[in-house]
Amino acid sequence: MAQHLSNVQEYKEFLDKFDVFLFDCDGVIWHGKNPIPQVKETLDLMRSMGKRLFFVSNNSTKSRQTYLKKITDLGIEANLNEIYPSAYSSAVYIKKVLKLPSDKKVFVFGEKGIEEELDEVGVAHIGGTDPSLNRNITSADMDTIRPDPSVGAVLCGMDTKLNYLKYCMAFQYIQDPNCAFLLTNQDSTFPTNGTFFPGSGAVSYPLIFSSGRTPKILGKPYGEMMDAIEAGVNFDRKRACFVGDRLNTDIQFAKNSGLGGSLLVLTGVNQLEHFQGKEDAIVPDYYIESLGHLAQAASL
Amino acid sequence: MAQHLSNVQEYKEFLDKFDVFLFDCDGVIWHGKNPIPQVKETLDLMRSMGKRLFFVSNNSTKSRQTYLKKITDLGIEANLNEIYPSAYSSAVYIKKVLKLPSDKKVFVFGEKGIEEELDEVGVAHIGGTDPSLNRNITSADMDTIRPDPSVGAVLCGMDTKLNYLKYCMAFQYIQDPNCAFLLTNQDSTFPTNGTFFPGSGAVSYPLIFSSGRTPKILGKPYGEMMDAIEAGVNFDRKRACFVGDRLNTDIQFAKNSGLGGSLLVLTGVNQLEHFQGKEDAIVPDYYIESLGHLAQAASL
Repeated sequence: MAQHLSNVQEYKEFLDKFDVFLFDCDGVIWHGKNPIPQVKETLDLMRSMGKRLFFVSNNSTKSRQTYLKKITDLGIEANLNEIYPSAYSSAVYIKKVLKLPSDKKVFVFGEKGIEEELDEVGVAHIGGTDPSLNRNITSADMDTIRPDPSVGAVLCGMDTKLNYLKYCMAFQYIQDPNCAFLLTNQDSTFPTNGTFFPGSGAVSYPLIFSSGRTPKILGKPYGEMMDAIEAGVNFDRKRACFVGDRLNTDIQFAKNSGLGGSLLVLTGVNQLEHFQGKEDAIVPDYYIESLGHLAQAASL
Repeated sequence: MAQHLSNVQEYKEFLDKFDVFLFDCDGVIWHGKNPIPQVKETLDLMRSMGKRLFFVSNNSTKSRQTYLKKITDLGIEANLNEIYPSAYSSAVYIKKVLKLPSDKKVFVFGEKGIEEELDEVGVAHIGGTDPSLNRNITSADMDTIRPDPSVGAVLCGMDTKLNYLKYCMAFQYIQDPNCAFLLTNQDSTFPTNGTFFPGSGAVSYPLIFSSGRTPKILGKPYGEMMDAIEAGVNFDRKRACFVGDRLNTDIQFAKNSGLGGSLLVLTGVNQLEHFQGKEDAIVPDYYIESLGHLAQAASL
């Protein structure tokens, strides 16, 4: 059963239980462009208590550098090796696990964050933000888009400039069973601007359904994300807590990774009715209305 | 077990078994812009034998009028009341079964064929080919796209000009449980230009996955398509045969509708290996390499 953190004493006891906190960002620290009230103060308090903090996001549109800027622009202290977006874990996977040969490239169905991380690890890529693909498909395209042995992987993340041309290219490439089919994450929706829109997992579904292939998923709740984090840092998982807004990614990730705790915040996707009294629900260890509330523990 | 039609005698016996033939079009009569050889001659032969012919397609991009022109441009005789594209069955469903109130409109995620059929039955619509939606989404859109009680249904078909803006609009409208969620069909791919690309069912998946809703499907193999056909014509189903290239739509449609026969042609999506020796496969009554082969029965 999930424990509700509802007063200053409980906030303090919760904070004392862990040395490391890992945070999802969208719906936890901010909504779109708006910071969630008092979250900065909570994170400042954690740092003052000597906690180690990591920012672990399934958002694939931002690279580590871009995430760092977004976080520090909100006045939150952070450094690059605390930041793990799925664009990063995906690039690490392609370089270190898939070991993509140097004569092969990745077709990116996604945005700049993925491209920047692939550049960082030295993997060639096409697609993505290529302006020549930002247009409607033509009949001539349908005559020429075919499998291409030089494309060793299709990596699919959120792309707000998606179009049928890019779907057709990605579809043809993954017709080749030697071409890996990768998703940065499988989130069905993402919270922004006070509502939800279709997420990265949703926009990848035309490729899953049309190809009949099962993609490898590189974000939360899967182990590849934890592998990417552990490549950079070491900590005692039993003294670490994941803080997120989504049961099937964040809270499941804490469980899959054997972390000591998981905290659901109610400022994002999931609410009490999504796990209370539900059979087979993913249940967090703790829940709180907002991460910002924990800042009140500073008064103790 | 499926019977292979492999010689002129078998072609003639097959033709004599049925009074009515219903045809899928893409992959059966043509590939994209190219007619399949001898199919015109087969259809001419059938007409000369007094058969009744119907063209039943899950393609939602063309209205009945546009389909008629495409068919007759290939030199094939046809008239409007022989033509049943899914854009038509969808418009009939919205008008006659859903009985959409006159103050409600349909948001079209799809092309001109759907709009023309909705106009034909007098149902108001937005979205579709509206040029103001043929662009990338903006941050301002994300602030303003919200559920709209004046949208009574979202109808999703193939849209080669799809974009994230249209996905977000459709997603927000179907957040309202009173807004119907309809698909013209659920084809995973469509055959064109000598290959396959993601089909109407595939491009609708971001909405299915992100909303968690189960849409009503109005094309083959579902009964709504047969209802639309039977609203216009009467025939003895036991003396009717469906001719198609896809097991899970065309052949399943023949079975769901209780037709006397089903013929799989191997010029499109499915091949022998998709049903021979496979448990749980959908098996046609007959199969033939091409619909064009039947024209040879004219020699008997």
